[in-house]
Amino acid sequence: MGERVGFIGLGVMGSNMAAWLARSGHHITVFNRTRARTHEFVEKHGGHAASTPADAARDAGYVFTCVGNDDHLRAVTIGPEGLFEGLSPGAIYVDHTTCSAELARELSRHALRAGFGFLDAPVTGGQIGAEQGSLSIMIGGAPDDFERVRPLLAAYAKHVRLLGPSGSGQLAKMVNQICIAGLLQALAEGMHFAEMAGLDPTDVVDVISRGAAQSWQMDQRHKTMIEGKFDFGFAVDWMRKDLGLALDEARRNGATLPVTSLVDQFYADVQALGGQRWDTSSLIARLRDRGL
Amino acid sequence: MGERVGFIGLGVMGSNMAAWLARSGHHITVFNRTRARTHEFVEKHGGHAASTPADAARDAGYVFTCVGNDDHLRAVTIGPEGLFEGLSPGAIYVDHTTCSAELARELSRHALRAGFGFLDAPVTGGQIGAEQGSLSIMIGGAPDDFERVRPLLAAYAKHVRLLGPSGSGQLAKMVNQICIAGLLQALAEGMHFAEMAGLDPTDVVDVISRGAAQSWQMDQRHKTMIEGKFDFGFAVDWMRKDLGLALDEARRNGATLPVTSLVDQFYADVQALGGQRWDTSSLIARLRDRGL
Repeated sequence: MGERVGFIGLGVMGSNMAAWLARSGHHITVFNRTRARTHEFVEKHGGHAASTPADAARDAGYVFTCVGNDDHLRAVTIGPEGLFEGLSPGAIYVDHTTCSAELARELSRHALRAGFGFLDAPVTGGQIGAEQGSLSIMIGGAPDDFERVRPLLAAYAKHVRLLGPSGSGQLAKMVNQICIAGLLQALAEGMHFAEMAGLDPTDVVDVISRGAAQSWQMDQRHKTMIEGKFDFGFAVDWMRKDLGLALDEARRNGATLPVTSLVDQFYADVQALGGQRWDTSSLIARLRDRGL
Repeated sequence: MGERVGFIGLGVMGSNMAAWLARSGHHITVFNRTRARTHEFVEKHGGHAASTPADAARDAGYVFTCVGNDDHLRAVTIGPEGLFEGLSPGAIYVDHTTCSAELARELSRHALRAGFGFLDAPVTGGQIGAEQGSLSIMIGGAPDDFERVRPLLAAYAKHVRLLGPSGSGQLAKMVNQICIAGLLQALAEGMHFAEMAGLDPTDVVDVISRGAAQSWQMDQRHKTMIEGKFDFGFAVDWMRKDLGLALDEARRNGATLPVTSLVDQFYADVQALGGQRWDTSSLIARLRDRGL
């Protein structure tokens, strides 16, 4: 243990993952676009503050990124003073951003030319999973690189799985979001119907959650959905970004996603209601809002 | 124990429920439209064969029905020689059919005039639940009637819940089917996307089923969905009947069910592919069938 690691992107997810790496005894150098967060992290968890992504990558055996989208990821990797300028041959670079499979494959080609390993490794489990170190990670890349980085990922993940060549992690994350989007709309329609029918939705869930209608979302979100509490969880803006990636990819691979594309449009309605930062379970808000 | 009970409708669900009542020591009289099934039941489980629904209800303290749809239910209740002609004041009539809330309310009014109790009590848990006596029952009606019939329902149900006045059981069952329809389409789109993206869908499910995408359907149906095995389970024809009831009711109560109505149409495609008797997870077949 005690590897030299670089971590770029100290948002809600990244800062928690980086903190777990620091706690596990690794020598960490961090970078964040907003400088204040970098210093905050170092004060709290130790390690070094880098002034550029390239600096965070220099001399590191392992570099991690967790940023917002494809554009941010391009900037901190192949952009000026990006980590590709600092990373040494033989090192491994792991990206935890949810981005396009296309960009993952592009970064993989860059890495191959430069002589270091690359894994696309989007996560699920949300903020709580990052805080508790219990994330799940879907990984694309080479088996050797996967085995090398596995002990480090154990610091913040309970379940990691290599799913195929570069891009496979991103594609699997898209499957996850596709399954969630339509499921949440179905649950919202069910709760909305219960309300309009004069039933107590909580009583109904108490029965139907024991059978074939059960889901994690039903168990965890029916209460807040009924109460109209959405100021927590995974934000609609992020979900739309992820669904955009899935719909773009489906345009390429030929998959037809009728309900996914419809629910993406419904999330646009939620944004129009002011719900950009609301939890994804807020789909019920547009069913309730009779002004639509 | 040892009540006099009548049971009308010996299909896959009804015959198993009636068998549990017989095993629990009740004196059962059964009726089925196809006479052969009536005699088959009596040979196997004892009890008496009635020649009309009215006969099955005569002298019974409790009568149960479990038939196919609103028309069948009207025929065996308020039709000629229906159970309403035989049932005595003070008895309780429990309907396990999945039917319209409107018909449930109509039967409740008839029962009130005739002086016997009525509960609408659709079930979930499928054939396996009926065979194992582990069904869930959603009930509408009066609390007194519910308490009286509860010990009998325990013969084949693990979870029973009174959800409100007459019709509430049917409305809750509609919520159940609404939640399932969109969820299954989302799962089908996810598995279809995984295939088109070149992933192993089983590997992907192994990761994503540990998080926010988890559902009973994902756990129980992803394998058969991927394999294209649909000759089991809850048939598409029955699901369309149930979704029709929900969409009709939504037209009355003002709920908007965009994804539910779309998935109902998708099930029509599955019927056109020859899938009338296929399990509801067969939604993936129309995504795969490039001829559509």
